[in-house]
Amino acid sequence: MIDTNVLVIGSSAAGLVAATTGKRVYPDKKFTVVTKMPKTLIPCGIPYIFGSVGSSDNDILPAEKMFEASGIDIVYDEVIKLSREECLVELKSGEKIKYEKMVMCTGSTPKRPSWLKGKDLENVFTVPKDKEYLDEMQKKLEGLKRVITIGAGFIGVEISDELNKAGKEVTLIEKLPHVLGLAFDEDVASRAEALLIERGVKVMTDKSVKEIIGKNNKVEAVLMDDGEKIEADAVILALGYDPNVTLAREAGLAIRKSGFILVDEYMRTDDNKIFAVGDCAEKRDFVTRKPSNIMLASTACAEARIAGMNLYKLSAIKTFSGTISIFSTAIGKTGIGVAGLTETIARNEGFDIVTGKFEGIDRHPGTLEDTHKQFVKLVVGKESGVILGGEVYGGLSTGELTNTIGIIIENRMPINALLTAQIGTHPLLTASPAGYPLIKAAEDASSKIMFKNGS
Amino acid sequence: MIDTNVLVIGSSAAGLVAATTGKRVYPDKKFTVVTKMPKTLIPCGIPYIFGSVGSSDNDILPAEKMFEASGIDIVYDEVIKLSREECLVELKSGEKIKYEKMVMCTGSTPKRPSWLKGKDLENVFTVPKDKEYLDEMQKKLEGLKRVITIGAGFIGVEISDELNKAGKEVTLIEKLPHVLGLAFDEDVASRAEALLIERGVKVMTDKSVKEIIGKNNKVEAVLMDDGEKIEADAVILALGYDPNVTLAREAGLAIRKSGFILVDEYMRTDDNKIFAVGDCAEKRDFVTRKPSNIMLASTACAEARIAGMNLYKLSAIKTFSGTISIFSTAIGKTGIGVAGLTETIARNEGFDIVTGKFEGIDRHPGTLEDTHKQFVKLVVGKESGVILGGEVYGGLSTGELTNTIGIIIENRMPINALLTAQIGTHPLLTASPAGYPLIKAAEDASSKIMFKNGS
Repeated sequence: MIDTNVLVIGSSAAGLVAATTGKRVYPDKKFTVVTKMPKTLIPCGIPYIFGSVGSSDNDILPAEKMFEASGIDIVYDEVIKLSREECLVELKSGEKIKYEKMVMCTGSTPKRPSWLKGKDLENVFTVPKDKEYLDEMQKKLEGLKRVITIGAGFIGVEISDELNKAGKEVTLIEKLPHVLGLAFDEDVASRAEALLIERGVKVMTDKSVKEIIGKNNKVEAVLMDDGEKIEADAVILALGYDPNVTLAREAGLAIRKSGFILVDEYMRTDDNKIFAVGDCAEKRDFVTRKPSNIMLASTACAEARIAGMNLYKLSAIKTFSGTISIFSTAIGKTGIGVAGLTETIARNEGFDIVTGKFEGIDRHPGTLEDTHKQFVKLVVGKESGVILGGEVYGGLSTGELTNTIGIIIENRMPINALLTAQIGTHPLLTASPAGYPLIKAAEDASSKIMFKNGS
Repeated sequence: MIDTNVLVIGSSAAGLVAATTGKRVYPDKKFTVVTKMPKTLIPCGIPYIFGSVGSSDNDILPAEKMFEASGIDIVYDEVIKLSREECLVELKSGEKIKYEKMVMCTGSTPKRPSWLKGKDLENVFTVPKDKEYLDEMQKKLEGLKRVITIGAGFIGVEISDELNKAGKEVTLIEKLPHVLGLAFDEDVASRAEALLIERGVKVMTDKSVKEIIGKNNKVEAVLMDDGEKIEADAVILALGYDPNVTLAREAGLAIRKSGFILVDEYMRTDDNKIFAVGDCAEKRDFVTRKPSNIMLASTACAEARIAGMNLYKLSAIKTFSGTISIFSTAIGKTGIGVAGLTETIARNEGFDIVTGKFEGIDRHPGTLEDTHKQFVKLVVGKESGVILGGEVYGGLSTGELTNTIGIIIENRMPINALLTAQIGTHPLLTASPAGYPLIKAAEDASSKIMFKNGS
């Protein structure tokens, strides 16, 4: 029997940040992390082990070292039962741990939908956060040439691009009209798609998969709804992830209809001794106030910080309430990012909006090497003038520019404030001050709501 | 005699943005720009014409095209007299222009201090925004090997690095303990300095120049205060810029003791028909509320937008009042940026502050190519918790990350809001979510003001 003050379940981004933040804030408490994973992967790096990073061994989160440096105990085991009345968990090994507070960071598992015939054939893969599985998958893929990815969200796009880079023949199938079609408006999604095609990925959009066909229990082809049959040596299912909530459910914690563990603003479940953070925990959209099924390590880390700070007292009062989807990805040397609402989502939700767009370049003068086109789109509430979302397509500074837009949204900045705000520019680092796409997009949006009759 | 509604003097960043913004907002008004420059340079690109950009011909601001596209008239001439009672200016050619509103964007001129003996010798150069001068300077420099730059502010550092890149033997002399010592704290300035030295620039700090010695009226050496004599074929004075206010002064407009034209929040001079914008116009620091002598094209553009919008009615009410210094620069593939107050300035001004620092990397995993160290420092009001400034040293995304910090400062975000804020991360674009230096620096700062007794 182990006695601890704070028990953290999970050692990926959420568990790591929850435990280290908590220990920093409450140094006198004993923290114990239980994890199934002897080596935790950097989650966002997983698609890149198939190309740019080379191997999962180059994508290790130094969690163990960080726990040790912080004076946090680690137990490599699996929690199989939680008794809330006794504040006790049981591990697979038979060991038990008594806790005062708990942070559940149980993560998520790739979907392998039951309707999909052939989903369990050999060489049908998913992309879990599991080093052992991924190592075996990578080894198997070595001998296989033709890969079909089903689902063109971030994971599907990233892994397709990387496998293409690594010399595979990759076909990416998506049922929406464009790749990344949930995350981005057509303006940006179509640019990303064109780039992916240019780099050699075969993209099939507006197409649904009927089943995966096998022979001798091995993948042979994918059969489309329209009857087309595409031969394949391997299939990767990139159809999203389900939150891991079995432990929580069996312990009687409230689970939302959406499948996530119910949490409040401070990441507390309906048992106030137990916090839940990351992919397993409920999120609410910052703007629409609706449940959101975003699963991002960056979001998990923000939640983990809040849980860690609020373990024994509510100290980290959230200034921003709700989750903003801030994604970015890269295809080659091109970055693509989004923060907040897209135009499509905003209109579907009934927001009365205008958009502002501008395409410029991310260096000045454009004669400098390494100059990329930079496209910025903003979504702005028509009457409030409040900036609700933004998308960026550009060079490798896209990630940080997307974060600038995120901070703008979290501060509920109105378009007038952005128009009169100051930015810094430099020839080798940014667009020009007179043609800075973020500000020019704000001008474009403002011209639709302000300045209608000049004189 | 030309009759116009809005007269804009100057065609660089400030004039361009003031005129095009004004015309967009007041399309029925006639706009006329008077400029001395047949070809306007991109101001921030000027140091780079000596290396990366190759020639001033590759650094042209397409001002003419943009004026034409907006339906704005251009007159290539110089305003030599302003009669405010008649709302009339006189040009060098003898032509006169009658205006309703005017925007003065008369810019600045490099300092050639009168105390400096030898300042007018042949091959002693400054760095003005003047294509003809710079072309001649570049031609003369071709045959010269040993260059001394006096003054290690942004222009001095950038031009020294570029001339070094172009094969010159460059010595950079600075009287402060570090290069960029006014803009950055020692943490960052010393890193920039080490990089500059590593790239081959000879850096002499804590050293004052006594005079420039010549022979046959040509530069031969620089004599230091301590008696050392450094031989040189050319000297570049990078000692800052003086605002061009002769026209304003002669017309009786109020000029501040600091030498800048007095303006209000809406960029109006004390003659409300006349606006002043950019290097010639007074600025007030966003945080310290003291006069600021920042001269940046990005600041000028923000001011120009405000002037352009407010020409005939006060429509662009400034949400943020005052100027934040947001700079960034690059040495090779390393970016260096600052927004708001440095620790040194904050302490000198009497602010009770704490700082937060973190050094991480700007990709994740760090095994990815193109990974740079990324150092972030934040300056935070101790009791208010408000973020007053930030500095970044990192890769090429530094410019946009510095802008994120700028938006944070303009929104007066407290450290708690940043700690619980969301950012987006991606392996190829940013630091990891668990080790994102901006948030980690916020944690470091917060640990000095919050979370002192955990339990």
